[in-house]
Amino acid sequence: MIIMKKDASQEQIKHVVGEIEKRGLKADVSKGAFRTIIGLVGDETKISFTHLAALPGVKEARMVEAPYKLISREYSSIFEEEGQSRLVKVGDIEIGGDEPVYIAGPCAVESKEQLFKIAREVKEAGAHILRGGIFKPRTSVHSFQGLGAAGRQEAEEALSWLKEAGQRFGLPVLTEVRGETQVDLVAEYVDILQIGARNMYDQDLMAAVARKGKPVLYKRHFGASIEEFLSFAEYIAAEGNKDIILCERGIVPVGKGKSLTRYTLDLAAVPVVQKETYLPIIVDPSHATGRRDLIYNMSCAAIAAGASGLMIEVHHNPQEALVDASQMITADELREIIATCQQISRLVRGRS
Amino acid sequence: MIIMKKDASQEQIKHVVGEIEKRGLKADVSKGAFRTIIGLVGDETKISFTHLAALPGVKEARMVEAPYKLISREYSSIFEEEGQSRLVKVGDIEIGGDEPVYIAGPCAVESKEQLFKIAREVKEAGAHILRGGIFKPRTSVHSFQGLGAAGRQEAEEALSWLKEAGQRFGLPVLTEVRGETQVDLVAEYVDILQIGARNMYDQDLMAAVARKGKPVLYKRHFGASIEEFLSFAEYIAAEGNKDIILCERGIVPVGKGKSLTRYTLDLAAVPVVQKETYLPIIVDPSHATGRRDLIYNMSCAAIAAGASGLMIEVHHNPQEALVDASQMITADELREIIATCQQISRLVRGRS
Amino acid sequence: MIIMKKDASQEQIKHVVGEIEKRGLKADVSKGAFRTIIGLVGDETKISFTHLAALPGVKEARMVEAPYKLISREYSSIFEEEGQSRLVKVGDIEIGGDEPVYIAGPCAVESKEQLFKIAREVKEAGAHILRGGIFKPRTSVHSFQGLGAAGRQEAEEALSWLKEAGQRFGLPVLTEVRGETQVDLVAEYVDILQIGARNMYDQDLMAAVARKGKPVLYKRHFGASIEEFLSFAEYIAAEGNKDIILCERGIVPVGKGKSLTRYTLDLAAVPVVQKETYLPIIVDPSHATGRRDLIYNMSCAAIAAGASGLMIEVHHNPQEALVDASQMITADELREIIATCQQISRLVRGRS
Amino acid sequence: MIIMKKDASQEQIKHVVGEIEKRGLKADVSKGAFRTIIGLVGDETKISFTHLAALPGVKEARMVEAPYKLISREYSSIFEEEGQSRLVKVGDIEIGGDEPVYIAGPCAVESKEQLFKIAREVKEAGAHILRGGIFKPRTSVHSFQGLGAAGRQEAEEALSWLKEAGQRFGLPVLTEVRGETQVDLVAEYVDILQIGARNMYDQDLMAAVARKGKPVLYKRHFGASIEEFLSFAEYIAAEGNKDIILCERGIVPVGKGKSLTRYTLDLAAVPVVQKETYLPIIVDPSHATGRRDLIYNMSCAAIAAGASGLMIEVHHNPQEALVDASQMITADELREIIATCQQISRLVRGRS
Repeated sequence: MIIMKKDASQEQIKHVVGEIEKRGLKADVSKGAFRTIIGLVGDETKISFTHLAALPGVKEARMVEAPYKLISREYSSIFEEEGQSRLVKVGDIEIGGDEPVYIAGPCAVESKEQLFKIAREVKEAGAHILRGGIFKPRTSVHSFQGLGAAGRQEAEEALSWLKEAGQRFGLPVLTEVRGETQVDLVAEYVDILQIGARNMYDQDLMAAVARKGKPVLYKRHFGASIEEFLSFAEYIAAEGNKDIILCERGIVPVGKGKSLTRYTLDLAAVPVVQKETYLPIIVDPSHATGRRDLIYNMSCAAIAAGASGLMIEVHHNPQEALVDASQMITADELREIIATCQQISRLVRGRS
Repeated sequence: MIIMKKDASQEQIKHVVGEIEKRGLKADVSKGAFRTIIGLVGDETKISFTHLAALPGVKEARMVEAPYKLISREYSSIFEEEGQSRLVKVGDIEIGGDEPVYIAGPCAVESKEQLFKIAREVKEAGAHILRGGIFKPRTSVHSFQGLGAAGRQEAEEALSWLKEAGQRFGLPVLTEVRGETQVDLVAEYVDILQIGARNMYDQDLMAAVARKGKPVLYKRHFGASIEEFLSFAEYIAAEGNKDIILCERGIVPVGKGKSLTRYTLDLAAVPVVQKETYLPIIVDPSHATGRRDLIYNMSCAAIAAGASGLMIEVHHNPQEALVDASQMITADELREIIATCQQISRLVRGRS
Repeated sequence: MIIMKKDASQEQIKHVVGEIEKRGLKADVSKGAFRTIIGLVGDETKISFTHLAALPGVKEARMVEAPYKLISREYSSIFEEEGQSRLVKVGDIEIGGDEPVYIAGPCAVESKEQLFKIAREVKEAGAHILRGGIFKPRTSVHSFQGLGAAGRQEAEEALSWLKEAGQRFGLPVLTEVRGETQVDLVAEYVDILQIGARNMYDQDLMAAVARKGKPVLYKRHFGASIEEFLSFAEYIAAEGNKDIILCERGIVPVGKGKSLTRYTLDLAAVPVVQKETYLPIIVDPSHATGRRDLIYNMSCAAIAAGASGLMIEVHHNPQEALVDASQMITADELREIIATCQQISRLVRGRS
Repeated sequence: MIIMKKDASQEQIKHVVGEIEKRGLKADVSKGAFRTIIGLVGDETKISFTHLAALPGVKEARMVEAPYKLISREYSSIFEEEGQSRLVKVGDIEIGGDEPVYIAGPCAVESKEQLFKIAREVKEAGAHILRGGIFKPRTSVHSFQGLGAAGRQEAEEALSWLKEAGQRFGLPVLTEVRGETQVDLVAEYVDILQIGARNMYDQDLMAAVARKGKPVLYKRHFGASIEEFLSFAEYIAAEGNKDIILCERGIVPVGKGKSLTRYTLDLAAVPVVQKETYLPIIVDPSHATGRRDLIYNMSCAAIAAGASGLMIEVHHNPQEALVDASQMITADELREIIATCQQISRLVRGRS
C-alpha cells in the first residue's frame, strides 16, 4: 500500500504506477477526497517498499499484513471521514447506509407470471431489490437447474422477464451467475450480479464478473473462514471494482446426529467484517436455515447484529416452489419482518 | 410417554408407575393443571406400550422419537395452555417469561473487594443475577484456576462472599460446579448451579447437580449438535429437576486460517430449542466471541433471535482481569446493552 | 434406473430412450458385457417408473435413493462380475486396478528446466503420471497464480512443456483446469484434466471438462461431506464420462486454537467411497497436511486404507518452490514412499 | 522449564524447587539418566526466568511456548537418547515400543459369561490387553448405561469379573472411569484407567485418576483440536503421572447431509502427536467409524500412520451387543487385522 501525500501531483502518481508495473505487478489507484492510495496487485516480494517510499509525492509505503488489503479498513483512509464505509449504489438504493436494504424474490424464476406476481407482492411488502434465480446451482444433477439450464434462448427470455419486472415495479434486479460463459449475457439484463456460495473460490468467474463494473453480491462459502472469505473478495477489488456487497449465508454444521438447521448462520461475521473492511455485509437467512419457521427470528437477529440488509426468498405459494420450498415465506411474512427490522435497526444504531 | 386421562385416579397413576418400575425403569410423573403425564427413564425396549395403553386410566401410551422426551414440547401438553413454556423461578426473577433476564459479573472471583465492587455496578446497570467463577475450567493447567483451586477453605470463603454480595445487592447468585465432589458445597451457597460447556457430557455431574433441586444453568458444548445438547439435558430432567436454563455459548470454528472469533455463536439454536422444548434458553456472548468489541452487537442479535436472557462477563477494570480479560466489558457498556435489548425484546415479541 | 433384460434388442433400448427424452430428461445408456442399464438425468418426477417397467425388454425400473445414481455400486451391475470396479485407463496405466498409481510433480510449473528436471526425477523414483500446475488457484490475489495467469500464450507454452516432458519420460500428464474458458486449450495438451477442490461445486466447469471425454481427476472440496462429493461427481457422469478418478485431499479443521495440519485428511472416505461407488479414489497427502514431515506417514496410511493411488508434490529444491514450499518432498523421499506403499498395498489386499 | 546441569547436586535441585514453591507454583521434577529437568505447574507470570537461570546448578531456564510443556518433546531431553519416547509399561506389555499393542474386548460388559467368552477369544486372536465398559457414557439417558449404573455392588461385581478374566487369560485389563466418585473403586481392580472422549475436559477427574499412579488411557474429545488435546493431557502430567497413553478416536463430522461415518478419524494426529510429545498414541477405529465394515481398513491405516496400538471392540455375537452393535467385529476378524498390522508396522518402521 502506497499512501500519496495530499498535494501529490498527477505526474508523481503516474511515476509510482510506472515503477510498480515495471516489476510485473498491477497498481490499483484509489482517489479520494483527501488523498490517493495505490494498492499493489500481485507478488509483492518483487518490489522494494523502501524504494517506493523514497519516490517523490509518496507519504508512506508499506506491507498490509492481512491477506486482504484493497478492501481493508486501513485502505479506506482515503475517504473523507475516518471509519466511513462504502455505499454501494444501485439506482436510488444505497447499500451500506443508514437504513437496511431488503432483497426479496423467488429462489428460482419459474414463469413470467410467477415472477411478476411475486415482484408485485415483494414491492408492496417494502422490498428494495428483486432477486430471481435463473441459473441454479443444485446438489443433484437430477434436480431442476433453473430456466437458464434449458439453453441460451430460454435463459435470455427469463432474464428479460426479470428486467421487465424490475422496470414495472421500480426494483433493481439481481441474479446469480454460475459460470464464466454466462457473465456477458447476464450483465446485459441485471443491476447486480451475484456470485453464489459455491463459487466463492472461483477466481476466474470473479474476475469476469468484476470487470463488468456493476455491483457484485458475493456470498461466503459454507466451508470458508471469515479471513478466507475476505481474502477471496480481494479478487473482485483487484479488478478495480469495489462495489462489493458481502453476504453471510451460513457455514457447515458440525457435530453428531442430524442437524436441525441446514447450515450454521454465523452472525458474528457481520460486525467482524465491518471492523475488518469498509464493505457492506448483508445476511441471507433463507439458505442459512433452510426453514421457513426460523426466518423471522434470524432476520431480526441479523439486523440487530448490524447487517446492512437481508436477502430473503419469497414465493406466492411456498409449498409449490420448484426449488427450496421449505424455506420460502410469503410476502405477508416479509412485510412483518421488514416492519420489525426497521425499528430494530434504528434501536441498535442509537437512532430510535 | 404415557398420557393419563383427565379423570385418572391416584390409584390408577400408582398402578402405571408400578408396572414401569417392575421392569427396571424409572417413572417420571408430571402433574399439570389439566392432566398427568408419565415419562419413562431407562431402556424402553423392556416394556410394551400396547400393554401400558390398556391399563385403566391411560389415555395414550407411545414412544417419543426424538432422543429427548422429558424436555420435549410434546411433553408440555400437561401445562394449562398449548405451547406454554416453563418459567424457571429464582427468588423474584422469572427466566423464560416476557422480559429477558440479565446475568452479569466477573469471569472469576478474584477478591471480596473486586466482587462487591462489580456486584454493585452490575446491579445499578440493571442486571438481575450475579455470576462469579470460583472453580474455573481452563485450557492450560498453567493458568489461574479460580480461588476454589487453592483448597476447600478458600473455596468456601469465596462462595460465602458470593452469597453475601447477592444478599447485599438483592441479586440471586450463580457459579459453575466443575466436579461431583464440589456439588454439595456449592449448593449451600448459590441459587443457580452452572454446568459449564466442557462438562456438558458429564452425566454423573449432571445427576448430582440435578438432585440438589435448584435451578441448573446448562451450557452447550462447543462440539455438540443441538440434538446432542438436548439429549444430554435429558439427564437433568431424568432426576426430576425441570428447572433447566439452557445456554448457547458458541461452537467450534471451522475453516482454514486463524479464526476471528473464539467460537461460532449459533443463534439459530435459540428458536430451534424453543420449538423443540419447553425450556428457556439464554445466550453467553462473552465466551462465544472472546472479543469485547463484539458483545454489544451479539447481545442485541441474541435477544432479537428470541433469547430469554443473556449472561455477560463484566469487570470494573477489564484490562486487568485475571481470566479472559479480552472479553470483559464495563458496567456502563452493560447498561447500554440492557437498555437496547429491552426495547428489541418488546419489538420482536410484538409488544412495543 | 432402468435395467434391461439380457436379451433386450437394440430397438427396445431405443424405445425406452425415446420415452425418456420425450419427457425432457436425458438417458444415460451403459452397455456392459451382461446387460444394458439406462440411467435418467434430470427431474425424475416427470416420469412414471411403472410406465417404464412395462415397456418391452425392460427387466426392472426404479428410483435409486442415494443422491448419486450413475456412479453408484448398484449401477455397476452391468459389469461382468459382481462388485467389480471401474478401471480408468490412461495410456498403459490403469487406475483402480491391483497396483496403486503414483502421480507426482511440482505444485506449479515454474520453468521448462524445472519441469524437466523434476519429471526425470519422479520417473526414476517410480511415479506413473506427471502433474504440474499451470493455472493455480490461490487464496490471495497477491500470490503467484501460475504461468497460465500471464496470458494465453504463456499458458500454451507451459502446457507444451508439460506434454513434451510427458513424452520424453513416458509419463501421461495431468494439470488443473480452473475455469471454463481454459478447458479446450488444456484438453489439447494433457491426458487427465483435474478439477480442483475449490471448483468441486462448479457444475458448469465439470460439464465442460467431462465433455472432452478424457479422464477427470475430481477432488473433494474441504467443506463437502462424502455424500455431497459423490452427488456432485454425478455431474461428470451425467455427461456420459465415467472415467472419473476421485481424490480425497482433506477437509476443514475443527476446534479451537491453531491447527497443526492444514486440513484434516479423512481417510475413512477411501473405503466409504469404494463401497458406495465403482470409481477409484486416490489421496493427496501434500495439500491435506501442508507439511513435508507428515507425507511419508500419511501416504502409507492412505494406501493401507485401500487408496488406488497417491498424488504427491515433488520439487528438486523444496525450500525454493514458488508455491506451497512447506509441503514439497524430494524425489528420494518419493522413492522411499513408493517402495513401502507397494508392499503395504499387497499386504492389505492379501496378496503379499 | 529449568534444565539442570549434568553435575547439579541434590541440594541445588532442592533449592530451585524451593524458589518455585515460594511463589505459589508447583515444581515437577523429572530425573533422567543424563540430567534433571524441573517443570513449572501454575501461573508462570509469577516467577522470573532470569532469576531462576542464575541459580547454582541451573543450565537453562526458559518459557516453553506451546500450551503443553511437561509432555513436550523438548522436555524429553532428559532421556538417554535424543528423540526417544516414553514406554508405558503394564505388566509385560510395553506401549510405545517397537511393536503395536492391541487392546480388545466388548464395548460393555454384559455378563460374566459374555466377558470370559470374549476374553478367551481376543487372547487367542493375539490381543495384549482386555477392555470392557462398566460405566458407559451414553448420549441418551434412556439407553443401557453399563452394569455399573445399577449400583456400587453391581459395579464391584462387574469389576471383579474383569480382574478375574484378566488373570485367567493373562491380559492386563482396562475400563473407563466416568466420574470422580468411581476412581478409587475402579483403580482397585484394573491395570489401566481410561478417561473417555466426553470427559477429556474434566480436569478434576483427570487429576483424581492421575494420582492413582496407574497408566491412563486418555482419549481425544471429538470437538478438540490436537493442540487442545495435548494442553489438557498436561493436567495428568501435572500430577506427576507421565504414564499417559493418548488415543485418537475421531472428531465431529463436518458438512451438509448425513455423515457416512460416525466421526472423522484424524489419522494425521498420530505423527503430529509423536512430533510434539514423547507419549505413545493409539487409535480406536471402532468409535471413530461406528461401522464394522470399515474397521479392517482403518486399523491398517492407523498402524501405517505410525500408531503404537489399536483399541478395537469385539463381541462374540456382534448383532446382539447391548451397546454399539454396529461397530463390533468378531475375534476372527481381529486376528486377521493383527496379522496384517504386524507386517505393516514392520514395513513402515523399516524393519521388514
